[in-house]
Amino acid sequence: MSIQIFSYEQLYRFTEAVFTKIGCSGEDAKGATEVLLSADLRGVDSHGIARLSGYVRLWEAKRVNAAPAVRILHETPSTATVDGDEGLGLVVAPKAMKIAMDKAAQVGTGWVSVQNSNHFGIAGYHAMMALQQDMIGICMTNASPLVAPTFSTERLLGTNPICVAVPAGSQPPFVADLATTTAANGKLEILQRKGEEAPGGWIQDKDGKSTPDAHALKNGGALLPLGGDREHGSHKGYALGAVVDIFSALLSGANYGPWVPPFPAYVPMPQNMPGKGIGHFFGAMRIDAFRPAEDFKRHMDAWIERFRSAKTIPGFDRVLIPGDPEREIEEQRRKDGVPLHEAVIEDLQALGAKFSVPL
Amino acid sequence: MSIQIFSYEQLYRFTEAVFTKIGCSGEDAKGATEVLLSADLRGVDSHGIARLSGYVRLWEAKRVNAAPAVRILHETPSTATVDGDEGLGLVVAPKAMKIAMDKAAQVGTGWVSVQNSNHFGIAGYHAMMALQQDMIGICMTNASPLVAPTFSTERLLGTNPICVAVPAGSQPPFVADLATTTAANGKLEILQRKGEEAPGGWIQDKDGKSTPDAHALKNGGALLPLGGDREHGSHKGYALGAVVDIFSALLSGANYGPWVPPFPAYVPMPQNMPGKGIGHFFGAMRIDAFRPAEDFKRHMDAWIERFRSAKTIPGFDRVLIPGDPEREIEEQRRKDGVPLHEAVIEDLQALGAKFSVPL
Repeated sequence: MSIQIFSYEQLYRFTEAVFTKIGCSGEDAKGATEVLLSADLRGVDSHGIARLSGYVRLWEAKRVNAAPAVRILHETPSTATVDGDEGLGLVVAPKAMKIAMDKAAQVGTGWVSVQNSNHFGIAGYHAMMALQQDMIGICMTNASPLVAPTFSTERLLGTNPICVAVPAGSQPPFVADLATTTAANGKLEILQRKGEEAPGGWIQDKDGKSTPDAHALKNGGALLPLGGDREHGSHKGYALGAVVDIFSALLSGANYGPWVPPFPAYVPMPQNMPGKGIGHFFGAMRIDAFRPAEDFKRHMDAWIERFRSAKTIPGFDRVLIPGDPEREIEEQRRKDGVPLHEAVIEDLQALGAKFSVPL
Repeated sequence: MSIQIFSYEQLYRFTEAVFTKIGCSGEDAKGATEVLLSADLRGVDSHGIARLSGYVRLWEAKRVNAAPAVRILHETPSTATVDGDEGLGLVVAPKAMKIAMDKAAQVGTGWVSVQNSNHFGIAGYHAMMALQQDMIGICMTNASPLVAPTFSTERLLGTNPICVAVPAGSQPPFVADLATTTAANGKLEILQRKGEEAPGGWIQDKDGKSTPDAHALKNGGALLPLGGDREHGSHKGYALGAVVDIFSALLSGANYGPWVPPFPAYVPMPQNMPGKGIGHFFGAMRIDAFRPAEDFKRHMDAWIERFRSAKTIPGFDRVLIPGDPEREIEEQRRKDGVPLHEAVIEDLQALGAKFSVPL
């Protein structure tokens, strides 16, 4: 499959123009663009511009409000429950994270649960907002059901990612950004595109048997929680995904479990939905609410240096610090541009034609 | 191996008497006993009374202070950093969790990082303290290094557990209590005792190859992070274990990574330790800081009922809710007593003889 390289600036202009065309304010269009393209920069290609036409289709289906009035429904000094007003998660999430950070500035930590939102791009972007203010950032979201709990054949959870971003001193920050499944859905899409088989423990078929068929989800299969099977700890991945669902949706009043709205606009909405939209959860902890930030960062540097210099298994160069691979891809892509697959380019060109916005 | 059944009350009297003999106050001896035995009740036998003589040996080695003055080093309205004064973690942890809950009562949430502590039994006990006050309880701790990060042959992390306890309404609470490894160390000890082999993905040998040898840790091997290997997401288990280390020790000023003190008193302390003792982290979130507790609990009941009634893989009775197995064992053991292995009984009898306390 053919690949072409685009500069970040070119993709930024195009994406911003599309968001503006569907009715986003100038500020929201810029914000949503920055969030969406941070996925392309960091190498999480499944969550970046490849999804732009999907977001537009949700707007066309009237499942997304391009001009949301994001508002606080309830709050205490360290918490808030936020109504995303059916906005793009790309717009709602940074506003909610900002509320968490403002609370942390006041009382040490801030925790915000969000209802009535939509898909928010990569969790890493939002959690990393906290780093500039010497805070630890935490971000999670529920997502449409693709994952079967341990022993189940039903898909009841999303890939429900968790991100924790921690500032360091002279070292780059620690950024753990992980789906609570063995493999993220994006990895499965790569296998599907290449016609390759999935390793054991990634997916199960409709009867709950591990299968190498990367297309099994189309036939009643499911992604598996981190761990893969009971013997390898899938009940832990299931529990972590459940915690994400509870913090994101049960605290906020969003939909949960099998009732989380689908991303593809052609998939009908679930029946008897118990809440509003998709749910997210954000946290910010001021480092100096615990100890002086300089002391903390000095020890984070020591932590990172010790782990990075660990003895490796023969055949592996080095032990990675969470966030290393994404940061290295970002450095390269900011310099050399972002590679897009032919299919994505065609999809964007069609989108551009519809809105009279050249790619 | 022969097994005998003891009533909870008999084990309680014995354990309380031993803690009193080493110098714990009446209140601390009761508290530590309740924490320690909650592991036996919940079926986490590796963390219960089987470890009592280990705690006593730490006291004999002057690595535990039986009469600690637990104090707050620094605080904000929603956070505190606590010095455990080298106390038993069994004593320090509930006091720190209480501080987190008091802060949550005031400002919505409370977050406490603890330095200068020791092993605290099972995480579940402390997190579950929050349930009675309609709060979500969170608890984690670092532990002595047994786990190799992905691609490493060195042991740099402990089994670093995370517990999240969530109240429900008519349903029992959701309690996820998990080591961030594929298998907890206690499971490995069971294999060692029975002379059985470990499944792939649980442990690696000194060269970093997955091995069935349950004794590999004695020969330079390591436990593996949840996921087992890179292809199955071990970088996620490693990242989660790292987050526990950071929250527990980098925020508080405790030791971290390979410098966390060992549990066995005969193992020398690490050199050049960067902090004080072992670190823990506690969180409490008041449900009604987000939405009315009754609304939340009604939806938690619906969540639990939906997951519990999910269609199962042929051969499996039901989908479990996190906390189900431990709660069911506790119900049974409170009624029928706690089974102890011959080796544990002999160890307790020797301990009793030393302190003139009959089992």
